[in-house]
Amino acid sequence: MTRPGRLHLNAFLMSVGHHEASWRLPESDPYADLDVEHFKNLARIAERGRLDSLFLADGPVLWDQVGRRPSGVLEPTVLLTALAGATRHIGLIATASTTYNEPYNLARRFASLDIVSGGRAGWNIVTTAGLDAARNFNLDALPAHRERYERAAEFVDVSLKLWDSWDDDVIVADKETGVWGDDTRIYPPAHRGHYYSVAGALNVPRSAQGHPVLVQAGSSENGRNFAARYAEAVFTAHQTLADAQEFYDDLKRRTLEAGRDPDHIKILPGIVPIIGRTVAEAREREAELERLIRPEYALAQLAGLIGVDPSELSLDEPLPANLPDEEQIEGAKSRRTLVVNLGRRENLTVRELIGRLGGGRGHLTFTGTAVQVADEIEHWYTHGAADGFNIMAPVLPSGLEAFVDQVVPILQERGRFRTEYTGRTLREHYGLPRPANRNTAAGTPVHSEEGALTR
Amino acid sequence: MTRPGRLHLNAFLMSVGHHEASWRLPESDPYADLDVEHFKNLARIAERGRLDSLFLADGPVLWDQVGRRPSGVLEPTVLLTALAGATRHIGLIATASTTYNEPYNLARRFASLDIVSGGRAGWNIVTTAGLDAARNFNLDALPAHRERYERAAEFVDVSLKLWDSWDDDVIVADKETGVWGDDTRIYPPAHRGHYYSVAGALNVPRSAQGHPVLVQAGSSENGRNFAARYAEAVFTAHQTLADAQEFYDDLKRRTLEAGRDPDHIKILPGIVPIIGRTVAEAREREAELERLIRPEYALAQLAGLIGVDPSELSLDEPLPANLPDEEQIEGAKSRRTLVVNLGRRENLTVRELIGRLGGGRGHLTFTGTAVQVADEIEHWYTHGAADGFNIMAPVLPSGLEAFVDQVVPILQERGRFRTEYTGRTLREHYGLPRPANRNTAAGTPVHSEEGALTR
Ligand SMILES: Cc1cc2nc3c(=O)[nH]c(=O)nc-3n(C[C@H](O)[C@H](O)[C@H](O)COP(=O)(O)O)c2cc1C
Ligand SMILES: Cc1cc2nc3c(=O)[nH]c(=O)nc-3n(C[C@H](O)[C@H](O)[C@H](O)COP(=O)(O)O)c2cc1C
Repeated sequence: MTRPGRLHLNAFLMSVGHHEASWRLPESDPYADLDVEHFKNLARIAERGRLDSLFLADGPVLWDQVGRRPSGVLEPTVLLTALAGATRHIGLIATASTTYNEPYNLARRFASLDIVSGGRAGWNIVTTAGLDAARNFNLDALPAHRERYERAAEFVDVSLKLWDSWDDDVIVADKETGVWGDDTRIYPPAHRGHYYSVAGALNVPRSAQGHPVLVQAGSSENGRNFAARYAEAVFTAHQTLADAQEFYDDLKRRTLEAGRDPDHIKILPGIVPIIGRTVAEAREREAELERLIRPEYALAQLAGLIGVDPSELSLDEPLPANLPDEEQIEGAKSRRTLVVNLGRRENLTVRELIGRLGGGRGHLTFTGTAVQVADEIEHWYTHGAADGFNIMAPVLPSGLEAFVDQVVPILQERGRFRTEYTGRTLREHYGLPRPANRNTAAGTPVHSEEGALTR
Repeated sequence: MTRPGRLHLNAFLMSVGHHEASWRLPESDPYADLDVEHFKNLARIAERGRLDSLFLADGPVLWDQVGRRPSGVLEPTVLLTALAGATRHIGLIATASTTYNEPYNLARRFASLDIVSGGRAGWNIVTTAGLDAARNFNLDALPAHRERYERAAEFVDVSLKLWDSWDDDVIVADKETGVWGDDTRIYPPAHRGHYYSVAGALNVPRSAQGHPVLVQAGSSENGRNFAARYAEAVFTAHQTLADAQEFYDDLKRRTLEAGRDPDHIKILPGIVPIIGRTVAEAREREAELERLIRPEYALAQLAGLIGVDPSELSLDEPLPANLPDEEQIEGAKSRRTLVVNLGRRENLTVRELIGRLGGGRGHLTFTGTAVQVADEIEHWYTHGAADGFNIMAPVLPSGLEAFVDQVVPILQERGRFRTEYTGRTLREHYGLPRPANRNTAAGTPVHSEEGALTR
């Protein structure tokens, strides 16, 4: 099978690595989760590899018990602003929740990051699956899955209106007449919807890329429909080529049906590359990491994900026969299904399943030499399973260095990856168009109802 | 009168200056409001002057009509993160609203800024006075003044619990046993209050300064009581020494009554220094700026502040005899009173009043030579009106440069200001103690109800 063109690569950064035991390796700095210099170093490594973007996951909650592993998570728009100052080209994608933020505040913060970084911001739009997060925001129960996605849709609609509330050429800066901006080119959203009412315009202008790149990372039915409507890049997790192909075809089709160009949604499955000079070396590394897992923590987390009590799982038995199905899960639906299918398909004990999830929490681990990893990447790309990959180094910085210094050059040599940045903005790296302003494009500007004068 | 000791100086930054017409001067870059390099330059100038801190005002709203003046306002926690990377010592104070944020998100963002900057963050806690802001957050009316301050108090209570939700020595990082942190030293707030319920611990640890310095900037009755209870520094506006002394004495007394050390609340009135080599040169500068004001915008803003319709004001007449009193104002109470008193006391026409407000929106303008400005500052300091000042340069960067290069050396020579930074954190610059963790200080840790395991 031949598919021309180049693929896209995103570096998913996470403290000292995606493997939950990575911090226990002699090489790892266990305080790095809170060290901005560590992240600047990672960003520079990724930029040296000409990667499209780097990415930070997030949730408004203490994810783990602190006994388990490094648990500090600096707020991503803050951390990415620091990384913007340490880099020049690479895109900067932050996760933020539509369930626990206000559109005016969040749209503005992303617009600010976009301006400060010269048009390099992206927003990974998530609805936040856990009850523990809900309980940090005045709620006693997790809002239902469907409701979270409805809210997300309206949240993004409002955000788009806010990002388009300044025309591209508002600023005239005429010192002579004393006119700084053209008030008639400000379009307050005047939004009155089901979840949100937002009257006024943003207090930052449109950015170099129009608005931040919209990224999405949920793969349930609701998640796919949301992605088809809004997402310009999609992070996803698959354990088999066939599953990834099904997802790829399905999402491209839904995007077309939603009236959008399927080429303007880039699908990026996650991979955890464990790279060795030989296969044996790579396998030894993998086994070493697995030995360092403390299964008691992982067992409790697994139980939560699949919706059972921890006491129902035994480390040396397979998953119980009767489990709640995806319908009954109000948390992360697609991840639950992936994990249950993996356990069943390979008939794994809970301990083995935990080992398989320890590296990438459900993302596929590729263990082998740099050539083998490059081959796999190209195979998935040419076989219609991916437009690129979300690189989840098991150990940081060493795993990202190995990928950038060993795998990227192979992909470049094969003409599969850029050798220099040709664009300036994140949109340009991903080959995404700069969106027209909806207000001027439609030819019917929405006018302000009132001036914002009472300060 | 002799009062020993040193005063504190904060640089209040605002696009190309606090004077609303500053952008029209030949020297000003009218795009600087959105240029992170402009702000980095200002931060470096302030740090060269050994100033305690710099400060950014904020509101979730487009403040002006864009016709009037530069209207872009980058979100302050984002902008200050960028400035943290360009400086080493100076404190970084961001304004954020308790009316339009969620405690978990905001406490975490400030904690992140505090960690990224090495303990230099401060939070200017405001309740946000305008209806236009309310309308960006699902509301049709401004929440009442009293309610906004009640909410602010609970918001800060929750934030303090969140900042204390990690003990100072949680992290043990024991690779051998695989224990990263001590789960028993995490204290989830389990807060159930009138406005907020927040169950879980923060996902960032306690910072070098324990928690960000709490700053406050409202001077009404409700505002003073709030400041007495929480604030470690207070920004305030006064037109006369007598008013400033009254405020100073009153707030120190209230702080004592609230059971706190009055020395741990630093009172910093704002001043707009217009500095010339001669008095005549300074006055000419002031007059030039006044000539560049477009009064139609200012008139509408003044009307909003004092609670009348713009049609009730005429540029060449004094303020109308009958105005709503402070009781009836639900917006910025103390500022309304200051402005009305100024107009009445000096029997100003609306045009003259607008001229007087153009520079500092009610903050006192000091026009004169560097020596005269230094004299005034020392006079207010020694006469019990201030612990320091909030420096609001009318034009930026030139006005800050003039202050740092001409006024600061005089204050240093007189022993009134530091010549080198002696501390590392913002708290140390202001001579404020590092707060003990309330959970451990009390000896009765609040325990977690549930682990945060379902991700
Ligand atoms: C690569 C990747 C990164 C993700 N990052 C986050 C994250 O940072 N925060 C979050 O709440 N969810 C994150 N998710 C989870 C999804 O947003 C979503 O909640 C989950 O996949 C379940 O969505 P679904 O119910 O639509 O399947 C991520 C998913 C993927 C594939
Ligand atoms: C120096 C200074 C800076 C201020 N900055 C802000 C700000 O950035 N945002 C805001 O909403 N209010 C700001 N305020 C206004 C106060 O927070 C407060 O709303 C106003 O003084 C009215 O409060 P009061 O009703 O208690 O008098 C500032 C006040 C002062 C003195």
